[in-house]
Order: sequence, then structure tokens, then C-alpha cells
Amino acid sequence: MPALAVLPTVSDFIYGVGIAAVAVAAITGVLEAGRKGMDLVGVAVVALATALGGGTLRDLLLDRPVFWIANQAYLLTALAAALATFFLVRAVKLPPRIFLVPDALGLALFTVAGTQIALDWNTSWLVASLMGVITGAFGGVLRDVFCNEIPLVFLPGELYVSAAWAGALALVGLQALGLEQVAAGWIAMAVIVALRLAGMRYKMRLPTFSARE
Amino acid sequence: MPALAVLPTVSDFIYGVGIAAVAVAAITGVLEAGRKGMDLVGVAVVALATALGGGTLRDLLLDRPVFWIANQAYLLTALAAALATFFLVRAVKLPPRIFLVPDALGLALFTVAGTQIALDWNTSWLVASLMGVITGAFGGVLRDVFCNEIPLVFLPGELYVSAAWAGALALVGLQALGLEQVAAGWIAMAVIVALRLAGMRYKMRLPTFSARE
Amino acid sequence: MPALAVLPTVSDFIYGVGIAAVAVAAITGVLEAGRKGMDLVGVAVVALATALGGGTLRDLLLDRPVFWIANQAYLLTALAAALATFFLVRAVKLPPRIFLVPDALGLALFTVAGTQIALDWNTSWLVASLMGVITGAFGGVLRDVFCNEIPLVFLPGELYVSAAWAGALALVGLQALGLEQVAAGWIAMAVIVALRLAGMRYKMRLPTFSARE
Repeated sequence: MPALAVLPTVSDFIYGVGIAAVAVAAITGVLEAGRKGMDLVGVAVVALATALGGGTLRDLLLDRPVFWIANQAYLLTALAAALATFFLVRAVKLPPRIFLVPDALGLALFTVAGTQIALDWNTSWLVASLMGVITGAFGGVLRDVFCNEIPLVFLPGELYVSAAWAGALALVGLQALGLEQVAAGWIAMAVIVALRLAGMRYKMRLPTFSARE
Repeated sequence: MPALAVLPTVSDFIYGVGIAAVAVAAITGVLEAGRKGMDLVGVAVVALATALGGGTLRDLLLDRPVFWIANQAYLLTALAAALATFFLVRAVKLPPRIFLVPDALGLALFTVAGTQIALDWNTSWLVASLMGVITGAFGGVLRDVFCNEIPLVFLPGELYVSAAWAGALALVGLQALGLEQVAAGWIAMAVIVALRLAGMRYKMRLPTFSARE
Repeated sequence: MPALAVLPTVSDFIYGVGIAAVAVAAITGVLEAGRKGMDLVGVAVVALATALGGGTLRDLLLDRPVFWIANQAYLLTALAAALATFFLVRAVKLPPRIFLVPDALGLALFTVAGTQIALDWNTSWLVASLMGVITGAFGGVLRDVFCNEIPLVFLPGELYVSAAWAGALALVGLQALGLEQVAAGWIAMAVIVALRLAGMRYKMRLPTFSARE
């Protein structure tokens, strides 16, 4: 039943990285929920929403089978990562910035996978790029809404949604120029990771709205 | 493929007003996101959620193709309106109340289009009226949740959801009485605009919950 | 059209309890929205979201017809319960704890019905248990997000999501061991009610995240 394959155009290697991205997102969910004093189950729910929320919204909008219902491996990975983090952090103190580089990799992978899935679903280029951004960033929005915070990705600061959108547009553009899918995917991921890391390193900011000033 | 037509029973003129309603909703999203100090991308995301959120939820609930995925014009309009507002407001100081009348028109159009789409999808009358209210008002709810505010439409004050619901019920009732679709649509829109403008002008209020007092 | 049946594997008696669960959830939504000073329409919207939100998310994720669109009785029940509560509480002062036992029954019924619907939809056991939890608890999450609160079910305290998840896993496990569907359903409901009531009575708590301490 090939229509149910979750990442039909990317290799098994990238499937593995996709699983890793789910795990990293679950960990960031645990850390934020923990700061709010949630209990074990609250933490698990926020972790699942963070890890699976973006891809779920993409699949609902495109009317595809929801990826973690079609393939339970994503759900098990997110749960295992959340539980391990929950108990590990009670024992060991992890430096918070250890997650920033894997998080950038996760953002890149999620965004490229989401954009490619939408293109394969025959959406227009702009819709496809937006599906990539949703896949990459919506989980974090959900995490912040559940934790009663303004979603961090909307606040001025390090590039996040903008890095994802740039990479998604690069993926669409390169394929329109005739580049092969997997090569375009690698370049798009490099764009996202480079913009995100540069944004964090050099505190790059987009213009904010003048009414604030 | 007629099933993909977004407004199958209303004229091209009303399609144009629908596009205008999307633009106005995007502008209100920009103004609220700007007050929160969000950056350009955060503002764009909130504007898209405000402009497209109501119709998206309606289409997901009815299991229809999502309107802005089926027709990219809505997405482009919302983005263009958001970007123009973002840069315009940095240069020119607009009176905030300039948007209230177009917003009331947008509410009326969205509500009538949403109700009619649901009726054509063979829902019951009560469900159809609710789909109209969702189409008209849910975008603003999403905007306020993303901006970490209690949705304004729920607070006591000027008629908003109640105006939309009254108009949606008028549309359903007039057609049940045998009135032709487009005529019923114009009357329902007039009901919504009149109630909304009267609510703002005379500060009409629905009863609030006694526990507050 | 059997595919549209909402509770295909449980009896008419349980259908009646399901309607009662919708009513109880609507009432809890009215009480929270009222504390925020919302007006009649805001209260009605929050009540509908509380009563119908969990089952709606389940049906969207499983790509089933949304239950209250397929059967208008749920919508009418939720609206009637919300309106009655709104006006009753203006006249009579109800003790707030009067709703806790029916709420526990509602949680049990929603969770068991949601899990069984997912199993009948051929999801995996873990996905099915999660669908049960979503059906039982997501309405309350939506209520709290709309009211701009951290969802109560995530905070440390009385067992809620954990009771629902334990019951859902019991339902799946007992059927895997060969127990008949309706008997397994009653046992699972008893597990949920017992855990929830014991959690309230003895203030049982799951471990919370150490970073808080």
C-alpha cells in the first residue's frame, strides 16, 4: 500500500534521521513541560504534541493518513525519548544548549520531508513550502500554547520559521530548475541548518513591527 | 472537478468579496501580532492563521478539500495583505477604527459562505449554522490564542459571534421557507452587518454569567 | 449506513450514557467560561468545545465522519445543557463538587468509547489507547486553552489523564487476552472511575519533573 508510506521519496537513512527528529522534539517538549511543574503524564502529552503535532497538521490539511497512526514507530520513539528524558534529568544535569544543534537538524529534516510530501501530493509550490514550515515548526507552537506561553518561534530573535521557510522555498525552486529530488533535499537541509545556526551564533533578527517601538 | 469549487453557489462577485474578507482578516492579524512585538515571520504566520483558520477548520470538519490548498489565490492574497500592512504601518499611522466596517463585511461574507457550503454538503441546519459561525469567527479565535489572549469574541461586549450566528440561522430559515439562495444570502449578510454595527455603535451586550458578579 | 454509527460496538444504554457525558462536559465548560466573565455566546462556544472537542479530534485523526455532524443529537444535547446551566446558575447556587462524580463517569465512558472505536478502525493497540485518552480528555484541554489557562489535566494533582490511559490500556489488554468486548468495556470503565475517585479522595500524585524543585 505505497500511499501509506510516510517518506516515499527519501531514503531509509533519512527515515532514520526522521525518527531522530521526533525524539529530539519530544525531548524539548519534556524540558518545557518540566519547567511548568507538570507531572509525568502531562509531560508525556506535551512531548507527543511537540514531536507529532507538525506532521499531524500537515497530514490533516492534505487529507493524508496521519503518519504516526499509519506507522506506530514514531509514537513509540517519542514516548521512549520523553520517558528517558523525564527520568534522566532527575539524575543528571544536562547542559540545555546540548539540544540546539540536533534541534536545528530536526527542523531541517522535518521541513524538507514535509515539503517533499506536499509536492508529491501535487500541491502548488507555495502551499508545499508552507506544509514544510508547518511540519517543522508547528509542534513547537503547540508545545508553547499548551504551556500557556506566546509561541517562541513568533518572537523576534534567532531565525527559526524564517530559516525553515527559506529552505522549503529552496527545495521547491531547485526542483523547478530541474535538480534531482534527493540532491535538492540535501541542499535545502544545509540552507536551513546554516541559517538557523548563523541566526543563533550572530543573534540575527528580522524586522519587528514598528508599533512596539 | 466541480467538487473543488470553493464557493459553488455564490457568484463571482461574492468570490471577489471573499478574497477581500481574507485580506481584511490578515490585516487584523498583523495589527494584533505587531502589538505583541512579533517579527516579520511571526506576523505573517498569525495573519495567515487569522485569514484562513476559520475556513480551514470548516473544511476539515466537513471532510472537504481545504479551500486555500485547492485554490492558491486565497493564500497569496493573505500573504500580500499581511506584508503590505507590515511595511505600511511602519510608514503611515492608520486610524485603528478604519478596519471595523470591512471587518464586519468580512464576518458577514465568511459566515454566509460557510453556512451555504455546509448546506450544500447536506449537513443538518444546526450544523450548517455552526459551520458558518466557525468560518466567520474561528480565525480571530486562533489569532488571540496564538497571541496568548482570551479570545476577544468570547468576552462580553459588542456583538460578534452572536451576530454571525443570527445571520447563519436567518440564511437557513429563509431557504427552508422557500427563498432563493442568493437572495437569502444577501439578507443574511445584511442581518450580520446590521447587528454587528449596531452592537458597536450602541455597546449592546448579551447577558454575562452571574458568577462573575 | 453502518459506517456512520457513532458507537457501533456498545449498547443503546451506553449511547445514553454517552449523551449524558456530553451534557456533563458542557456543564463544566459553562462553569469555567463563566468564571472568566464570558457572555452567553462565549459560554456556549466554550461548552461546545469542551463537550465535543475530544471526539472531534479523534474522528479527524482517524479520518472518520465527525460524530456530532453525523448525529445532531450530541450537538443539541450540549447546547441544551449549556443554556440550562447558564440560566440555572444565575438562580440557584450549586455546590461545585456535585459535578465531580458524573465527570469521572463521563471520562470513563468517553475513554472506553474512543478506544473501542479506534480498535474497530484497525489501529494499533498503542494508537487506540491514545485515541481513548484524546476522546476523554482533549475537550477539557481545549476549554482551558480557550480560557487562557494551563490545561488543568497537565498539572500535578489528582489522577485524570493517567486514569484514562490506564483504563484504555486495560480495555486493549483484556480483549487481547480474549475477553469479550462489552465485558472488557465495563471493567475498563470501572478502572477509570476507581482510579479517578481514589486520586481525588487520597490526593494521589504522579512524580513531577525535578527541575521544578
